[in-house]
Amino acid sequence: EVTSLDAQLSHDTATIPGLVNIAAYVPSLAGAAGARDFAAVARVSLAAGFTFSNVLQTATGLTDSSALSAASSLAADGAFTDYAFAATATAANAAAVAAVSEDIGALYLPFTDRSTTVAAVSSHFATWPQSKVVTTDAKSTDLASVLLLASLHARAIHVTGVSSRDDLALIAMAKEKDMPVTCDVAVYSLFLSQDDFPCSFLPSKDEQLALWENLAQIDCFSVGAVPSLLAKALQKPVTAGLGIAETLPLLLSAVADGRLTLDDIVLRLHTNPVKIFDLPVQKATVEIDLERVSKTVSPLGGVLTGTVERVIFDSKTVCLDGQVSAAYAFGRNFSSKLRAQKIASAAAPVAMSMPVAEEAA
Amino acid sequence: EVTSLDAQLSHDTATIPGLVNIAAYVPSLAGAAGARDFAAVARVSLAAGFTFSNVLQTATGLTDSSALSAASSLAADGAFTDYAFAATATAANAAAVAAVSEDIGALYLPFTDRSTTVAAVSSHFATWPQSKVVTTDAKSTDLASVLLLASLHARAIHVTGVSSRDDLALIAMAKEKDMPVTCDVAVYSLFLSQDDFPCSFLPSKDEQLALWENLAQIDCFSVGAVPSLLAKALQKPVTAGLGIAETLPLLLSAVADGRLTLDDIVLRLHTNPVKIFDLPVQKATVEIDLERVSKTVSPLGGVLTGTVERVIFDSKTVCLDGQVSAAYAFGRNFSSKLRAQKIASAAAPVAMSMPVAEEAA
Ligand SMILES: [Zn+2]
Ligand SMILES: [Zn+2]
Ligand SMILES: [Zn+2]
Ligand SMILES: [Zn+2]
Ligand SMILES: [Zn+2]
Ligand SMILES: [Zn+2]
Ligand SMILES: [Zn+2]
Ligand SMILES: [Zn+2]
Repeated sequence: EVTSLDAQLSHDTATIPGLVNIAAYVPSLAGAAGARDFAAVARVSLAAGFTFSNVLQTATGLTDSSALSAASSLAADGAFTDYAFAATATAANAAAVAAVSEDIGALYLPFTDRSTTVAAVSSHFATWPQSKVVTTDAKSTDLASVLLLASLHARAIHVTGVSSRDDLALIAMAKEKDMPVTCDVAVYSLFLSQDDFPCSFLPSKDEQLALWENLAQIDCFSVGAVPSLLAKALQKPVTAGLGIAETLPLLLSAVADGRLTLDDIVLRLHTNPVKIFDLPVQKATVEIDLERVSKTVSPLGGVLTGTVERVIFDSKTVCLDGQVSAAYAFGRNFSSKLRAQKIASAAAPVAMSMPVAEEAA
Repeated sequence: EVTSLDAQLSHDTATIPGLVNIAAYVPSLAGAAGARDFAAVARVSLAAGFTFSNVLQTATGLTDSSALSAASSLAADGAFTDYAFAATATAANAAAVAAVSEDIGALYLPFTDRSTTVAAVSSHFATWPQSKVVTTDAKSTDLASVLLLASLHARAIHVTGVSSRDDLALIAMAKEKDMPVTCDVAVYSLFLSQDDFPCSFLPSKDEQLALWENLAQIDCFSVGAVPSLLAKALQKPVTAGLGIAETLPLLLSAVADGRLTLDDIVLRLHTNPVKIFDLPVQKATVEIDLERVSKTVSPLGGVLTGTVERVIFDSKTVCLDGQVSAAYAFGRNFSSKLRAQKIASAAAPVAMSMPVAEEAA
């Protein structure tokens, strides 16, 4: 460990704002397993520099208000990041999820783990509140179809986990025509290809090249479900929090290699996610050492350069050298009803404890 | 035969403009079989009141300039209607068909008999001349995808053979947002459902009801490939010209039943097709008897009411009571280079033989 020498050595350190995981995968969000999984994801996230988890996908999906309530209840005790839950759209739940949208962070239109028809997407766009984000993992023809419906309903849409040249080109084309479309690429898809593992959810080497060549079109980086899909494909256990620890070291290694800048990372793991998902201001900073070898190895087995040394939340050190040091689960559920309350209390003169200033990013 | 009594009897006759088959299916368009098939389709068409055939689909598709030239050569001898050929888009022929677009009536983006990727559709929209029609038989997600690409490329698109409630609703939604989208429904789909034949290309009874309920959204009627698909499904020979003879009698029977008006038919088999496909003015009229029992039986075996008695083209009777009486194959290939020549010669003072006036529709 070089930590004790840090103050003396001259080396590249940086302080960046708390990162946002806009597409967190939590295997279960029900019962005791759910509480355990959520807490595990939160702890791994915090140690990895993430201070916000947008829970997008679970093995079964949060498709009704009872699943959403259950998730909210079990989350509180293990919440070592702020968080919000997305509701998973089905053919039948448009009215039901719209009715409880106040308590939901975003709407997720799934295409990878289940499929959604044009009629279902249309009914969701017609009922889901205009002010709230819609995210989809649609690909190819499904993606085009979702973009059309978003355009017809004058809705913004965020496309998560883009992994092909064509899909990125379609999104770029839509952006060029001023459609309110944004997208993210899973970090694993930037560093692992079908050359490494023969899995259809990974890009081919050529598609991966297209992702790197068109970085300007990629608004955010995500963790997403790719690490979990890879574990499953490799017949390894799909435990909670896979891929989160690798995310920043993979990206910082690309900084060391001159393929990315630190600004590229902050823009796509903090600034744009906050903007796109309309997330609350957090008083959270992450101190990183750009040269220190990560304790996390690459998914390919190699050494990664770049380590999160300290996470500071509300002026307190909540994680030091990978160890969560927070006294309690400080994370807040930023589904929007709660968010609205926070904003209201922040506006009141007595709200002393609300974080009011954006970190200096 | 009641023909000889016609002049004396008081009954419902009508003169309508020559009809347009906007989605003609010709099994083969190559070699001797092609010449035979094209001539058979032309003769059946003329006897059925059609004076223009937009050849959209063949068993193999017209995917390159040699296939298109071959079709044009073999058509001349059997052309008893005016006609134009559509080129079938493939993943690889965007540049090639765009290069010969002067000699092609329209571009066809196929999804039923083969599939077209988002990238291929996009490349065709990028290269096919803006002034020429694009037709597709895309359904469901594919349809949404084509509509998005058409919208992004600011292209008009005609959707042929709509057969579901959702697809029609999507088209209606796109029209409402002022997208230049038009559509047709195959006449067989208005009269045959999966209740009659368990074929996935036919609408369910409920979907069929949706087509009738939303007639206002249906710009054209078509013959299309449905009659040929049905023959194939019933293990009957797929001969040239299937379904053409039944088209007008089926529709006129619906007029007799009070479900349609004659104007509904003329609008969708003549006026709108001419407008949407930018077809030449023809001096062609069709005399029909609304009460006379058709010699063509319904695909369900029943009696149909309504008969084409005479077709007049360029002031000559070219078909009488189902018998082609034209002295020669008068039909012209209205792929647009030829059309441009015709228009140029019509503008010149010596062009006496060009039809210059639209029939009084
Ligand atoms: Zn709407
Ligand atoms: Zn910030
Ligand atoms: Zn250090
Ligand atoms: Zn260091
Ligand atoms: Zn374009
Ligand atoms: Zn007319
Ligand atoms: Zn008569
Ligand atoms: Zn009569």
